[in-house]
Amino acid sequence: MVPHLTTALNGPLLELEQRILDAMPRIEYWLRTQWLEHGTPFYASVDLRNAGFKLAPVDTNLFPGGFNNLSPDFLPLSVQAAMSAVEKVCPEAQRFMLVPENHTRNTFYLQNVAALTNILRQAGLTVRIGSISPEITEVTRLPLPHGGELVLEPVKRVGNRLVLDGFDPCAILLNNDLSAGIPDILQGLEQSLIPPLHAGWAVRRKSRHFAAYARVARDFAELIGIDPWLVDPMFASCGMINFHERIGEDCLASQVSDLLSRMGAKYREYGVEQDPFVIVKADAGTYGMGIMTVKSPDDVRGLNRKQRNKMSVVKEGLQVQEVIIQEGVYTFESINEAVAEPVVYMMDHYVLGGFYRVHTGRGIDENLNAPGMHFVPLAFDTACSLPDCAGKPDAAPNRFYAYGVIARLALLAAAIELEETAPLELAA
Amino acid sequence: MVPHLTTALNGPLLELEQRILDAMPRIEYWLRTQWLEHGTPFYASVDLRNAGFKLAPVDTNLFPGGFNNLSPDFLPLSVQAAMSAVEKVCPEAQRFMLVPENHTRNTFYLQNVAALTNILRQAGLTVRIGSISPEITEVTRLPLPHGGELVLEPVKRVGNRLVLDGFDPCAILLNNDLSAGIPDILQGLEQSLIPPLHAGWAVRRKSRHFAAYARVARDFAELIGIDPWLVDPMFASCGMINFHERIGEDCLASQVSDLLSRMGAKYREYGVEQDPFVIVKADAGTYGMGIMTVKSPDDVRGLNRKQRNKMSVVKEGLQVQEVIIQEGVYTFESINEAVAEPVVYMMDHYVLGGFYRVHTGRGIDENLNAPGMHFVPLAFDTACSLPDCAGKPDAAPNRFYAYGVIARLALLAAAIELEETAPLELAA
Repeated sequence: MVPHLTTALNGPLLELEQRILDAMPRIEYWLRTQWLEHGTPFYASVDLRNAGFKLAPVDTNLFPGGFNNLSPDFLPLSVQAAMSAVEKVCPEAQRFMLVPENHTRNTFYLQNVAALTNILRQAGLTVRIGSISPEITEVTRLPLPHGGELVLEPVKRVGNRLVLDGFDPCAILLNNDLSAGIPDILQGLEQSLIPPLHAGWAVRRKSRHFAAYARVARDFAELIGIDPWLVDPMFASCGMINFHERIGEDCLASQVSDLLSRMGAKYREYGVEQDPFVIVKADAGTYGMGIMTVKSPDDVRGLNRKQRNKMSVVKEGLQVQEVIIQEGVYTFESINEAVAEPVVYMMDHYVLGGFYRVHTGRGIDENLNAPGMHFVPLAFDTACSLPDCAGKPDAAPNRFYAYGVIARLALLAAAIELEETAPLELAA
Repeated sequence: MVPHLTTALNGPLLELEQRILDAMPRIEYWLRTQWLEHGTPFYASVDLRNAGFKLAPVDTNLFPGGFNNLSPDFLPLSVQAAMSAVEKVCPEAQRFMLVPENHTRNTFYLQNVAALTNILRQAGLTVRIGSISPEITEVTRLPLPHGGELVLEPVKRVGNRLVLDGFDPCAILLNNDLSAGIPDILQGLEQSLIPPLHAGWAVRRKSRHFAAYARVARDFAELIGIDPWLVDPMFASCGMINFHERIGEDCLASQVSDLLSRMGAKYREYGVEQDPFVIVKADAGTYGMGIMTVKSPDDVRGLNRKQRNKMSVVKEGLQVQEVIIQEGVYTFESINEAVAEPVVYMMDHYVLGGFYRVHTGRGIDENLNAPGMHFVPLAFDTACSLPDCAGKPDAAPNRFYAYGVIARLALLAAAIELEETAPLELAA
């Protein structure tokens, strides 16, 4: 099932989808040539927002944590893509160590690790899970909600290699986004580290990603003859923000004001009647902490203590110092009157499938990847690679094809971003 | 559904499957390294025979003609594999011309062309179908049994390019096995020709394929610690055979005798109680014409006129001159008491899926790909890439995994065979 658009603003989206469908051979050809020039991340997920008049990525995750939410029907596709990804990144590898996040009490996350491990094993790898959590000091068996268990083992450093008892892996796959910084134990390893350390939030910045995305979107828009804004969220950033001490409020208010006014111009151009809003979030980090919906510069001035606390801390205690102010994209997709946001999963440069985050308690202008969010993952029930050119543009396979295209634009932006931020010795 | 083994001889096969399952990471790793050394054919299908005590390929087709028989569930997998194949063979190509067989009255074959075209289009290529049949002199619309139509256009040669009206393709995909020889119009083209001309039956020989396969099987058997015979059909060949004029009967009878006695020794070693049989068929060519089941050297002496006529002519009138004498592999798979033979489809080096040829009127020692054969294609209902290591070795996903492994060994043999037979200027 695909959620139907619930507003009258579906004209332009249908037009956008139709353009994407019509240009399909050109798009696939162009993407093929892009992948020849840019090495793809091993895996990624992209949160999209479908506003009816606009379809754009709002977040690109290089350590995707929801493989368990994909339909089991997508498993063969995932296995095939994993084979391709392994071939490209480390064809000589046979043994993989998967390094997960440290929050081992989140059973949703554990199911993700189990699903990802299963995909890699089906692709023919020997996989064991090595934890860098200080709490995992011995082999730990964690039961999974739907049966089975996950076996976490404490990693050991032997010289420049990360090993487990009796297991010396050729490559290490990170499913840990390094929000807390790069731990010493991962520094200077001689094994392949996938993705590389600079893909973690210790180094990565959303603003760099969306700067790269803006360039990709411009080229793509030229390719299919559209206004890049229809697929690209505008943004600005502020460095040196300290919410606790109220440092940087002026920068923030002025950037919010500027972005809202640029959005207002675009909304008038396209006859959009909603109020523009922006999202203020940490430029580094994930998991929806430290995120605000803002409709006026006044919203970021004079925050009360609770608001300031909320904005000050992101995952694992990393202090917010830089923020990104991103154009908010309304989501006009809903399922049973609950707000829905599509998430697309990729491995190598292949789209595996996706799911909807569905949230009954949230508005169309709010972030759905929020703390404590109990979203209902609704798996896409058809693949993203099979548009039905004879079908209506809003037929499920066509909507999913458009989602897959926009998600791959974000993936390409991530590839370029990683090239640009690679340590000098690697970039040479 | 998977046909269950219908004989008591299922012990050794289960053991073989268990070994393949247990060695899965080693097998996948080994295959990965093989693909680094050998360029895979764009696509292929492999006919397997599952004898209970033995599982082996009996034919490898480099111009597969049954894409319409695959389950629609495999379409996303096929599209993804096609993307990968195109990237490797001709990433710069956007326009493909598909050149089908000339027998345009076979609606089963037309459905195959339609299914293959659909896969390529979904992979983002612009595809048109260019016929080299002398009967196609103008744009010809052929209705398909399940609706829709296939549009065939006559090819034109312009300098060293093959074109259609208003369509100059970057690459030409052959789905024509060139049994009738290589037509002049395909010689010396500057466009990429996929597969290359020497993959056609004008050049290809089954005996060369199975010689390459024997080497692959030996390496594979060593890898997982089995007797190579369990996955490799023995064979011999005779050149200069003319059934009409009874030339070469002695060579044939002596090779048959020798092969039957080698098989007898193996059957005794493994306690197989059936009578060995061999298949005599043209060393070049396809489509099941000119195929005999032989249980004694006497069977190939003193053939009557009808038998000699049958063996003399293969597809499109090519005269048989060389024959392969191949170890017959009993098929002990059956569905509703009808004999079944698995066929596995691949693109690039990925297994797409497969189907069973099911034939009620044929015995377990007969060729099922015979003239006039009205087989029932029974699509595999799970993918070949998802073994269930916790399941029984004869659980459907595990049987299909074993099929996918053996089919990929044949694919690897085809890759090596094509390297060895490549024209000198290309091999350099």
